[in-house]
Amino acid sequence: MTGLSHEQHQSIRQLAEARVSGHGLGSRFYGDPLLHQADLESIWFRGWLFVGHSCQLQEPGDYLALQVDTEPVIVIRGDDEQLGAFSNVCRHRGTILCSKSAGRIGRLVCPYHQWTYDRDGSLVSCRGMDDDLDTSNLSLHRFAVEETAGLVYVSLAESPIPFDVAANQIGPAATVQGLQRARVAATVDYQVEANWKIVWENNRECFHCNANHPQYILANFDHYNSDDTSPEIQAAIDEATRRSHQRWTDSGLAVTHTSTGMASFPAPGPAGWVTVNRTPLVDGYLSESMDGRQVAPLMGDYADPDVGTLRIRTMPNFWNHSSCDHSVSTRLLPEGPNRTQIQVTWLVDATAREGQDYSLEELMPFWQLTSEQDWSICESVQRGVTSRYYTPGPLSPAKEYNVDALFNWYLDQLTTVGADPK
Amino acid sequence: MTGLSHEQHQSIRQLAEARVSGHGLGSRFYGDPLLHQADLESIWFRGWLFVGHSCQLQEPGDYLALQVDTEPVIVIRGDDEQLGAFSNVCRHRGTILCSKSAGRIGRLVCPYHQWTYDRDGSLVSCRGMDDDLDTSNLSLHRFAVEETAGLVYVSLAESPIPFDVAANQIGPAATVQGLQRARVAATVDYQVEANWKIVWENNRECFHCNANHPQYILANFDHYNSDDTSPEIQAAIDEATRRSHQRWTDSGLAVTHTSTGMASFPAPGPAGWVTVNRTPLVDGYLSESMDGRQVAPLMGDYADPDVGTLRIRTMPNFWNHSSCDHSVSTRLLPEGPNRTQIQVTWLVDATAREGQDYSLEELMPFWQLTSEQDWSICESVQRGVTSRYYTPGPLSPAKEYNVDALFNWYLDQLTTVGADPK
Amino acid sequence: MTGLSHEQHQSIRQLAEARVSGHGLGSRFYGDPLLHQADLESIWFRGWLFVGHSCQLQEPGDYLALQVDTEPVIVIRGDDEQLGAFSNVCRHRGTILCSKSAGRIGRLVCPYHQWTYDRDGSLVSCRGMDDDLDTSNLSLHRFAVEETAGLVYVSLAESPIPFDVAANQIGPAATVQGLQRARVAATVDYQVEANWKIVWENNRECFHCNANHPQYILANFDHYNSDDTSPEIQAAIDEATRRSHQRWTDSGLAVTHTSTGMASFPAPGPAGWVTVNRTPLVDGYLSESMDGRQVAPLMGDYADPDVGTLRIRTMPNFWNHSSCDHSVSTRLLPEGPNRTQIQVTWLVDATAREGQDYSLEELMPFWQLTSEQDWSICESVQRGVTSRYYTPGPLSPAKEYNVDALFNWYLDQLTTVGADPK
Repeated sequence: MTGLSHEQHQSIRQLAEARVSGHGLGSRFYGDPLLHQADLESIWFRGWLFVGHSCQLQEPGDYLALQVDTEPVIVIRGDDEQLGAFSNVCRHRGTILCSKSAGRIGRLVCPYHQWTYDRDGSLVSCRGMDDDLDTSNLSLHRFAVEETAGLVYVSLAESPIPFDVAANQIGPAATVQGLQRARVAATVDYQVEANWKIVWENNRECFHCNANHPQYILANFDHYNSDDTSPEIQAAIDEATRRSHQRWTDSGLAVTHTSTGMASFPAPGPAGWVTVNRTPLVDGYLSESMDGRQVAPLMGDYADPDVGTLRIRTMPNFWNHSSCDHSVSTRLLPEGPNRTQIQVTWLVDATAREGQDYSLEELMPFWQLTSEQDWSICESVQRGVTSRYYTPGPLSPAKEYNVDALFNWYLDQLTTVGADPK
Repeated sequence: MTGLSHEQHQSIRQLAEARVSGHGLGSRFYGDPLLHQADLESIWFRGWLFVGHSCQLQEPGDYLALQVDTEPVIVIRGDDEQLGAFSNVCRHRGTILCSKSAGRIGRLVCPYHQWTYDRDGSLVSCRGMDDDLDTSNLSLHRFAVEETAGLVYVSLAESPIPFDVAANQIGPAATVQGLQRARVAATVDYQVEANWKIVWENNRECFHCNANHPQYILANFDHYNSDDTSPEIQAAIDEATRRSHQRWTDSGLAVTHTSTGMASFPAPGPAGWVTVNRTPLVDGYLSESMDGRQVAPLMGDYADPDVGTLRIRTMPNFWNHSSCDHSVSTRLLPEGPNRTQIQVTWLVDATAREGQDYSLEELMPFWQLTSEQDWSICESVQRGVTSRYYTPGPLSPAKEYNVDALFNWYLDQLTTVGADPK
Repeated sequence: MTGLSHEQHQSIRQLAEARVSGHGLGSRFYGDPLLHQADLESIWFRGWLFVGHSCQLQEPGDYLALQVDTEPVIVIRGDDEQLGAFSNVCRHRGTILCSKSAGRIGRLVCPYHQWTYDRDGSLVSCRGMDDDLDTSNLSLHRFAVEETAGLVYVSLAESPIPFDVAANQIGPAATVQGLQRARVAATVDYQVEANWKIVWENNRECFHCNANHPQYILANFDHYNSDDTSPEIQAAIDEATRRSHQRWTDSGLAVTHTSTGMASFPAPGPAGWVTVNRTPLVDGYLSESMDGRQVAPLMGDYADPDVGTLRIRTMPNFWNHSSCDHSVSTRLLPEGPNRTQIQVTWLVDATAREGQDYSLEELMPFWQLTSEQDWSICESVQRGVTSRYYTPGPLSPAKEYNVDALFNWYLDQLTTVGADPK
């Protein structure tokens, strides 16, 4: 494990303290290798990272492989139907065990010399070694893994922070969406030339939506905020909320976000890295689709399409918008200080058949366009914030409260956690 | 602002002092990140940088955007017809304001959240902020900008060196060329894998011309030097000078460089970073074109094509060769220690119509070929000088006096200026 | 010359001492710039590096140019028929003298200003310099060069280690192959994203052959080892050895490797960086070709195709497998800590005519496939060993004895040699 020296921690602490409250972060947070190392230590190699969906890992042997900055990770469904997460690196000579990003395998057989691991990571065969080799110390390096409501998470930490705060929030609210029995309809991978924090800063406000997201703003209320919510807008939200409440009574659903603007996230405290809420859509929109019409069969336990959108977010790498008929997950993975690998995944009900029950042409554009509009902005911000003439500006209290909250959350992780001796 | 430490200055000074007079620079000057930082501090972020031509910035709102190493800069014509230069970075969240390299705009509106700046850089609109926000401190970071004889310069320094030494030299000599009322006929951008100094070393001698520039040497006398100027050659120069003088008497023009070899540049002292001279062309050459014939209508105040070439150079990033009928500007911008972005621009009289008065096929090859021949050499030099077995060799006193002068000028900037506490 | 500081040597020594015997190397050996610098100093800029074949340098003026990490090197046949090796960098301004990788030249004329060097590296012409310039100090930087049995080697060291240990081993065993009078039939260049040591680790065991080299294992016995050599396998080797011995008696050939597994290499001591042996092929294989049939005319002094394979290896950058009819050389050159440039060259007898006596379709696949199978593995290992969760695993005593020997040899070079003050 690579750690940071006391001097490096001091240097990071000074940078953090130099931030003016209610303003952005300084240039070094977006490109300096030391800061990136600190981000890895205190956040990426410590928190819970979204990996993918349970429905991608249904059968024993199903796996997903990903790379968290320099770290190859594999998550695999075990023979006992439980998930296991491991370093995707052979204990013999260090070869990547599974080089594809997904698949199904019997045992984990290293392609180099066929060291073979059970689905629980234990070494069961290593031809050519001395008979007295103690293989019990040669299991794959194990990471913590959890799943809740069809979402799979891994933590690379030796002593992970509690996951129950996520399960407690996501489980009750998201089970109705039926992600456990969904199917991946499409996946798009992006390489975005921006620090991962810039992607989150962008995600945590809809101040930019009017000018940049012509599709998104037709369906949603987030781009209005406390300072520009007219009585008409609030009345529309109230009406949408009332309408939904009436329909949802039977199924126990409830709108949990009844105002304009985005739900507060992230927040201080041990549960501050996760949030779930249900939000009404604009009248006429049953789904986050180009024209608001339903574009696939109802998912999960929904009996009526008018369920607004379910939104789940977990720091540092996941958000999801789910409509009645489809669900879109976004997964971030850093690759150095100025690049982020982003995967966007569209899910539909497991029984929906492409070409008959839905088409990708109708399913994908809303979030594909919105995502790509965001990535383009993020790359432009990356170029600007690394200028020596950039001084972090003031944030709008009415519209960028979550960006401020993001910086507070981030600096708290960086200085409190990162300061611990390793 | 990033500064260099006292120890770093000492280290740079030692490297500078280790150079043997009349010889080249050591390897570290061409690839070491510390030296590149010093180049930025003492030269690129301090001197006057050529941006483009006034004729590209004619109307209020016309802008040119460029990147000086990591620094995004925008120059824009204001409502008062004066130019303004600014950091091309929004004071809010750091987004690049203008992502295109040229255009015309009303106000500078950030594409992210529409913070809006007047053409003088002052913040005039920032929706969503508290009413009591003091916007007077949120103008765009302003840089110094100057124009003379149709050439536009910017300095990123807080206290720029005097520009009048450039205006005093370029103005009187170059106004006749009419660059103010010219038009860009073509632009070619190059990414050259060589340190910016190597590009200048190449530019400051014509010792390499015989073997590398078959087009250039037909038109010019520079590739002869004091050691190989035969009486016949000198007679040809004298004849060309006399012929030109007779014709130019009416217009007040004068040949100012009447010998073989290149004009001395750069030079010590506060005016040493700029030079202008008029040079005769070989008999039969009215223009720096492939066959010497005029390839476009006369520019500026010229009544006769036989005006030789006007040559303007300013350290660290500009040179221009102007014939009677067209003008070619070369602009350098560093991008890290071993890459230089180079833009070559061809200008003609504003009234000249492509296809009727000139064709790009006749206008461009002379300087396009010559430029590309040079960039190819520069990339080969970059690979060689970074070898650990490279020892800087002796310069030819007769042919490389300007390369020696360049090194003296450079090291003077680096050690005198760079040593100042910041 | 760049050297390492005392503190850096100490740091490297500690890393070396931390290695557990019989196990792999830690992550830092595969990506850390300091370790790469140490590899260059103690191995690449000190040992003997294979350049190419004498038959590529037959006539005075024939040259081969290559780049050893950052160092451009040229080897040229002199007027006296002796080889010379030089830094491929002009002593004047540092230009690369020969930018092609092979060719024939009269003198070495710098393309920039035509400084001209004789084929012995001495400066014979430098137009434009003062007459009293002492050119005797301006010869090209000379490196040591040797050739033996048609193989050409260079050393960048000021005081190279003895080459005679290589000549004494390679000469007597390899002359019969006739590489001196061979001809290059084909060359393929690869850029492999792996540290050079990973390429050698892969080369030094055939433990991976069963699963990865379906072509190679049909022809060879190396993939069997002491732990899995059945009596039948050993009988086949004995039979092949006996058969070969009988046929070779007249020509003085001898099988020198009569067991399964790979010949021990590298080894401690001054001769440990070179090895040569002759190995029987599986019954039915006369050549390392796809079906074992002879694919080109006999080479060298062979009168009978049944000569097994001759194998030559020299650390740090060469191995060769020669059959009766063709010879395949592999040359490694590092390019930074995580990239290796690899050139594979196929040779046939100088009189063999392509299309008549042999076809590339029959000649190349055996080693082209085997090589590319290896490069793919190496890139996967590079990604894994740089993980922070990678801990070097135990090596198989029966199958990976040479990998262990490689690490011992390597660390010995690094710590003993690298510790010397420079």
